[in-house]
Amino acid sequence: MKSELAAILDKDSKSNKEKSLPSISIDCVVFGFDTSSLKVLLVKLKDKDEWSLPGGYLGKNESLDESANRILNERTGAKEIYLNQFKTFGKPNRNEDFFAEFPDDLWHKQRFISVGYYALINFAKVEPRVDDLSDGCEWKNVHELPSLMMDHEEIFNTALLELRKGLNYRPVGLNLLPEKFTMPELQRLYEIILDKPLNRGNFYRKMTKYGILNKLKETRKGGAHKAPNLYTFSLETYKEALENGFKEAW
Amino acid sequence: MKSELAAILDKDSKSNKEKSLPSISIDCVVFGFDTSSLKVLLVKLKDKDEWSLPGGYLGKNESLDESANRILNERTGAKEIYLNQFKTFGKPNRNEDFFAEFPDDLWHKQRFISVGYYALINFAKVEPRVDDLSDGCEWKNVHELPSLMMDHEEIFNTALLELRKGLNYRPVGLNLLPEKFTMPELQRLYEIILDKPLNRGNFYRKMTKYGILNKLKETRKGGAHKAPNLYTFSLETYKEALENGFKEAW
Repeated sequence: MKSELAAILDKDSKSNKEKSLPSISIDCVVFGFDTSSLKVLLVKLKDKDEWSLPGGYLGKNESLDESANRILNERTGAKEIYLNQFKTFGKPNRNEDFFAEFPDDLWHKQRFISVGYYALINFAKVEPRVDDLSDGCEWKNVHELPSLMMDHEEIFNTALLELRKGLNYRPVGLNLLPEKFTMPELQRLYEIILDKPLNRGNFYRKMTKYGILNKLKETRKGGAHKAPNLYTFSLETYKEALENGFKEAW
Repeated sequence: MKSELAAILDKDSKSNKEKSLPSISIDCVVFGFDTSSLKVLLVKLKDKDEWSLPGGYLGKNESLDESANRILNERTGAKEIYLNQFKTFGKPNRNEDFFAEFPDDLWHKQRFISVGYYALINFAKVEPRVDDLSDGCEWKNVHELPSLMMDHEEIFNTALLELRKGLNYRPVGLNLLPEKFTMPELQRLYEIILDKPLNRGNFYRKMTKYGILNKLKETRKGGAHKAPNLYTFSLETYKEALENGFKEAW
């Protein structure tokens, strides 16, 4: 008896042969930030025990960036998210065995190289969605990952390393923090991404040098301590740095 | 009458249909350093006026890294070069028009996404080679580039930006400088890559913090000035930083 997954894969296979380019897949590492922890969006395929990164195939008339955005949108409803292409994974035999029990002409069984994208979003703002092929789509804490299929653990680890390295030349925080935020709130975001405490004075000096912050005259009222200063991002220099790296760097 | 290029392309097309994966090409941005300027290795296709980056296709049993290494080796004879995959280019219609005058079933006329790699090598140590499809393979100064085919100028510009950004989290210099070098020689390498002068004191402080240099007791003898200190790279921390970024960073 055909399993439910087999029937759905067969349909999906026919559809992709029509509409997708061969040999190329896209995988998205969607990091979610919620002011106290870093999570990643994972999908569970029907009939399989392992989880996977949300992914898909490149449409014949789609650019890679459009494809990654479509996949993220299908999974979360999120639109106009900054997706960062970080690496393409292309070892032979990275995926062919996963569908070993299915017919050889199944679309999903060919050799794929996979273009990896990551995004960092505020996970309170999006709603994960399952699709026909999956029976789970959930945020998982990056420190408590379930077993991942194929080379998805390598793809995830590479994305996390690139996200962390990226802090040295690219700004982060827009759309994750409230419009007005304090320096300790910004520091907490960096500490959660890096998974380590940072020195307060060093953090302040480094962030100030990047030239992407506007210090407001307002302070955050309430609380027992001295009211901390509020900041906004300077959109022009922020976007310039996102494109070309920090001016302060080499 | 068939042009010489048409006959060679036809043969190359048949061969690639046998041995390569569809839809995927590789392009290499090979930067050459010679202590006074930065160059890039370019190829001129027969019968075409524009130059191109050296590239090729992904073998059915080859990894992306192996493919990039093979292509670099075929063009320069260089082996075991550190090649850095920096971006995959995937706009629709980025290449199909280039071979418009050739038959539709020509391998080269399908839509390709192209995986970009860059390498930085000492160009005195390698010998550029032409292949059957090309009648030129030359080092060109990055400030005097000829017109490039398809989106190769975008690929080149992205590689140069990534090379420069990479200086903020990754070491450079091994295999480019002599085994023992002075701080001004290392600074000159950075200045050539960045195309701008750097402050000597800042450079010294930053490089020292990275923890990848061994200061030797020897000095460089000769010359009118005070003999400068010699350094070597500390291979263990250099390789660790190449893999995981500088410890000094965030």
